[in-house]
Amino acid sequence: MFIRNAWYVAATPNEIDPLGAGQPLARQVCGERMVLFRGPGGAISALEDFCPHRGAPLSLGRVCDGELVCGYHGLRMGCDGRTVAMPGQRVRGFPAIRAWPVAEYAGFVWVWPGDPALASHEQLPALPWADGAAVKPGWAYGGGHYEIACEWRLMIDNLMDLTHETYVHADSIGQPEIDETPSQTRVVGDEVITSRTMNAIQAPPFWQQALAMNGLPTDQPVDRWQVCHFTPPSHVMIEVGVALAGRGGIDAPDDAKAATIVVDFITPETAGSIHYFWGMARRFRADDAELTARIREGQGRIFSEDRAMLEQQQRNLAAHPTRDLLKLNIDSGGVMSRRLIDRLLAAEAAAASAQIPAAA
Amino acid sequence: MFIRNAWYVAATPNEIDPLGAGQPLARQVCGERMVLFRGPGGAISALEDFCPHRGAPLSLGRVCDGELVCGYHGLRMGCDGRTVAMPGQRVRGFPAIRAWPVAEYAGFVWVWPGDPALASHEQLPALPWADGAAVKPGWAYGGGHYEIACEWRLMIDNLMDLTHETYVHADSIGQPEIDETPSQTRVVGDEVITSRTMNAIQAPPFWQQALAMNGLPTDQPVDRWQVCHFTPPSHVMIEVGVALAGRGGIDAPDDAKAATIVVDFITPETAGSIHYFWGMARRFRADDAELTARIREGQGRIFSEDRAMLEQQQRNLAAHPTRDLLKLNIDSGGVMSRRLIDRLLAAEAAAASAQIPAAA
Amino acid sequence: MFIRNAWYVAATPNEIDPLGAGQPLARQVCGERMVLFRGPGGAISALEDFCPHRGAPLSLGRVCDGELVCGYHGLRMGCDGRTVAMPGQRVRGFPAIRAWPVAEYAGFVWVWPGDPALASHEQLPALPWADGAAVKPGWAYGGGHYEIACEWRLMIDNLMDLTHETYVHADSIGQPEIDETPSQTRVVGDEVITSRTMNAIQAPPFWQQALAMNGLPTDQPVDRWQVCHFTPPSHVMIEVGVALAGRGGIDAPDDAKAATIVVDFITPETAGSIHYFWGMARRFRADDAELTARIREGQGRIFSEDRAMLEQQQRNLAAHPTRDLLKLNIDSGGVMSRRLIDRLLAAEAAAASAQIPAAA
Repeated sequence: MFIRNAWYVAATPNEIDPLGAGQPLARQVCGERMVLFRGPGGAISALEDFCPHRGAPLSLGRVCDGELVCGYHGLRMGCDGRTVAMPGQRVRGFPAIRAWPVAEYAGFVWVWPGDPALASHEQLPALPWADGAAVKPGWAYGGGHYEIACEWRLMIDNLMDLTHETYVHADSIGQPEIDETPSQTRVVGDEVITSRTMNAIQAPPFWQQALAMNGLPTDQPVDRWQVCHFTPPSHVMIEVGVALAGRGGIDAPDDAKAATIVVDFITPETAGSIHYFWGMARRFRADDAELTARIREGQGRIFSEDRAMLEQQQRNLAAHPTRDLLKLNIDSGGVMSRRLIDRLLAAEAAAASAQIPAAA
Repeated sequence: MFIRNAWYVAATPNEIDPLGAGQPLARQVCGERMVLFRGPGGAISALEDFCPHRGAPLSLGRVCDGELVCGYHGLRMGCDGRTVAMPGQRVRGFPAIRAWPVAEYAGFVWVWPGDPALASHEQLPALPWADGAAVKPGWAYGGGHYEIACEWRLMIDNLMDLTHETYVHADSIGQPEIDETPSQTRVVGDEVITSRTMNAIQAPPFWQQALAMNGLPTDQPVDRWQVCHFTPPSHVMIEVGVALAGRGGIDAPDDAKAATIVVDFITPETAGSIHYFWGMARRFRADDAELTARIREGQGRIFSEDRAMLEQQQRNLAAHPTRDLLKLNIDSGGVMSRRLIDRLLAAEAAAASAQIPAAA
Repeated sequence: MFIRNAWYVAATPNEIDPLGAGQPLARQVCGERMVLFRGPGGAISALEDFCPHRGAPLSLGRVCDGELVCGYHGLRMGCDGRTVAMPGQRVRGFPAIRAWPVAEYAGFVWVWPGDPALASHEQLPALPWADGAAVKPGWAYGGGHYEIACEWRLMIDNLMDLTHETYVHADSIGQPEIDETPSQTRVVGDEVITSRTMNAIQAPPFWQQALAMNGLPTDQPVDRWQVCHFTPPSHVMIEVGVALAGRGGIDAPDDAKAATIVVDFITPETAGSIHYFWGMARRFRADDAELTARIREGQGRIFSEDRAMLEQQQRNLAAHPTRDLLKLNIDSGGVMSRRLIDRLLAAEAAAASAQIPAAA
C-alpha cells in the first residue's frame, strides 16, 4: 500500500517544539503513528508514539534534557527508542520501540518509515533550491501544509495532469489553451516527466502578476510552460513559467521571463488521507518576504480548490470500488507514475518475503 | 431492499438550479447517487453522479448549454449519460453512465431508479390535486422536505397507524378518542386502506383552527375521519377532516366540514435513511397563500415530532436486530403494507434472476 | 467482557426525574440499554429501554402514576417489565421486557445487570460513610460523574498505581517522593490492596490546603499515605492523607492529620466506555457545604486530567491490538485486580454454560 523504504516529509522544523516548552509532535506517516522531538544537541528523533510500559502516547509527555518523558508514569525514552530510566525501575529489559531515520533537509523534517538499515541521506531528493537543511542563497521558498482525506495517488494524478487547472482553478491559473495543447510524457530512469508548452498566448491572472513583479509587461503575448516531474515515492515538482513570446520559453534569459517551481511533497498518512506539503521555490526577488507571503496566500487558495475536489473524488471512488476509470492521453503522467509506483511496491514486497526463510 | 421499478419523488423543481447559475443537484435515491440538472429546453435529467473519466462527482461541475461539464477536467456529459465532448479527446468510446427516467409531475421531480425500459408516465400515482406538472385550479398545496435517519418502512408504519397522534402529537392533532376507536384495514388491489371514524367528539386544536378558517363554529361536536391510503412503493395519502356532527362525516357538504389530504412521499435514500416529502392538499381558501404558509409551518412542526421518534426507534431496532415486534390490530395497516411490499420485492427479485441465463 | 452478577452505580438519585415532570432516564450499563424511572411509591425501576410493541425507546415516554407510558403509541409499562395496559388492546400475551434489580444506597442508584435471581442487597459494597440510602452523620460526601471513552480496566489500572500522580497531576497532588517510594500489594480475599507510605516529606499543594482546613500547620514535615482498595466488579476506594510527621501516619489522632477517602465507582457503559462516578468522603468539617463544593471542584479538575490520558491510551491500544504491555512492580495493583476479574469472568462463563443442557 505504501512505499516504505523512502524519505517522506513529515513536518517542518518549526512544528517541533516551536515554543521551546518541551512539547513533542504526534504525526502519522504511512500508517505509522510517530512522535517527533529534539534530542540532546537538537537532532530530531522519530519514535513509535507508544510507551512500552502501558501504551500511553508518548506525544502526551514532555521533553526534558533531550529525553522524552512519558506523561503517564514518567518513563524516560531515549532518541533510539530505548528506555533510559524510569523511577524505581530497572529498565534494561524493557523492549525497545521503533525508531525511524530522520533528516533535516531543505527546510523540512524527513522520515524514512521503512527499514532503517536501508536509509541514507544520499537518497534524499535533489532540490535545486536546497542547501543542506536550509534554502540556497538567491532562492526563496514559501509553502504550507494541508491534511487531505484522499488516497495519496489521487494527488499524484492531479498534479501530473494540469488540464484540471482550466476547470478547478479557472480564476487564477486556468486558461483554455491548456486543454487545447497536448502534453508529452516520458520516463527517464525513475522519473516521469509530463510537459506542455503554449506559445504566444495571453497570460492568465496569476502569471500577469508574476510578470509585473519581474518588471515585465503584462499585456504582451507570452510562451507558457508546465513541466511536471514525478519521483518516487510521491514527490512532484513542477517547473512553471511564462516568457515574453519568442524569447526561448523555459530557456529564455531571466530578464524576459517569470519562472518558479511548484513543490509538492505528498506524504501518505493513512490509506485514505495525506499530509500535503505544498510550496513554491523561485529565484526572482528572493529577499522580498512580503512577496513570498503573497504568493503563499494565493497558492494556498488555489490548492484548497484541489483539496475540495480530491476529497469528493475519494468519497465517490470509495462508493464505487469496482469501477474502472479511463486512462486518456492527458492521464499518461499519472498512469506512468502509478506504473513506477507498482514496480517499487512489488520490489519491496518481494524483498520482504525473501526475508522470511522457507520452511525446511 | 428497495422496490426499484417505481416512481419516487427525488426533489422539488425549485431545488434544481434555483439561481439559474448552472448548479446541478446531488441526491441519493434507493442507494443510487444521482446528479439532477436541466438539459437543453429545460427538461430534467438524472444521471449517475460519477464522471466516467476519473470518478469525480459530476455534481461539482456546472451546466453549460444543457450539458453537464465536469468540474475536474471539463468532460461534457449529455442528458442521456453519454459523453458529448472533452477537450482534446475523442469521446466516442467512453463508457456511458446510467441515466434514469425523470418526470415532472404535480409539483415534484420524480425518478425511476430501476430499469428504464419498464418506466412509463402512466405509472405515476393518481393525485386528485395534480394537473400535469402543476397543481389543479381550486386546490392549494404546501409542504416540505425532511431527511430522516430511519428505514423507509418505519415511516409507512407510522403513517398507517395514527393512534400515535395521541402521544407524539398530543398538543395539536392528538386526542384520546383516536385510541378508543378501532380502525378498519382493507386491501383493494395494490392499495392498503386503514380508516377510522370518530363521531360527535370535540375537535382538537388543529381542527378547531381549520373549522374557524372555513367559517364554521369550533365549539360544537364534530365527526372526525382519518382514511390512510398506502400505495407502492412508499406513498401514503391520508384523507383527514372534521364535519359538524351528523352532517355526513367525510361525505358532508363542503359548507359543513373542513377536509384536507395529508401527503407523504417517502423516498429511501439509503438502507437507513429517507427523503421525506410531506405536505397538505386542500380545496378551501385555495388562493390564500398566507394560510398555506401557516398550515405548512404547523405541519412541519408536527412532522418533526415524528422525525425525532423514528430516528430513535431506528437506533433502538439496530441495537436489537433479532428481536420480534408485536403486530396488533392497530398495526394492520403497516403489516398489510409490508406484505404488499414483500410481494413486489419478491417479484422484482424473480424477474432479475430470470434475466440471468442458466448455464448451458 | 463484563462481570454481570454484581452491583454497579448507574446514576445518582437526582438524575431520575429531578423536575418531577415524569421524565425517565436512559442509561447504558454493561452494554444493556436501560430506562430508569420511579414507580408507584417512588421506588426506582430499571427496564430494557425497548417498547415490546414497536421497539421505540421507552425513555422517550413519560411516567404517569408510577407507570411508564410509551411516547409512541401509549403502551403502559409496569415496574416489573410487564405491560399493564394499552389503549384498545388486551395486553396479557405481550412479552415482558427485562427488569434489573435496583437499589438506592449511599447516595447512588445501583443496578445489577446480570441474573436477578442472584442479586441481594447484602452484596452491596460496605462503605464506611454510608447509612442506608444516605450518608452517615459526621461524614461529608461530594463527587461527580464523567463519561470516559476507555475500557473499564484501564481506569482500574490508573487508580491502583498512583505513581501517575507525579506526572498527570504534577500541580496538585503529585510529588517525586511517590515515585521514589515502593508500594506494597496484597490480596485479602476478594480485595486487592496497594499501599505506599512516605514519611517526613513536604505536603504537596492539595494537602497543604487540607492541613490548613484542619487547623494544622502547612510548613512542617508530614507522613503521607495512599491505600488503594480494589473490590469487584470495579470499585476502587483509596484512603489518602497526611499526618504531622511521627504522629502515627494513617493511625494518628484526628487532630494531627488530614484524611479522606477517594471514591471511584467505575461502571462499564460499552466495551470501550465507562460511566465514572468519582468523589471524596471525609470526616472533617462535615457540615461545611462550601468546603465540599471546593473539594469537588478541585477533584473534578484532577480527574479530568486522567480522562484525557485514558482516552488517548485507549485509542493507542486499539491501534496496536496485539502488543504486550509491561507489568512492573508499580503495576501489581492493577495486575492483581485483573487476575481477580479474570477469575470472576471465568466463573460466570462456566456457570452460564452449565445452564445449557448437553445434547442427549
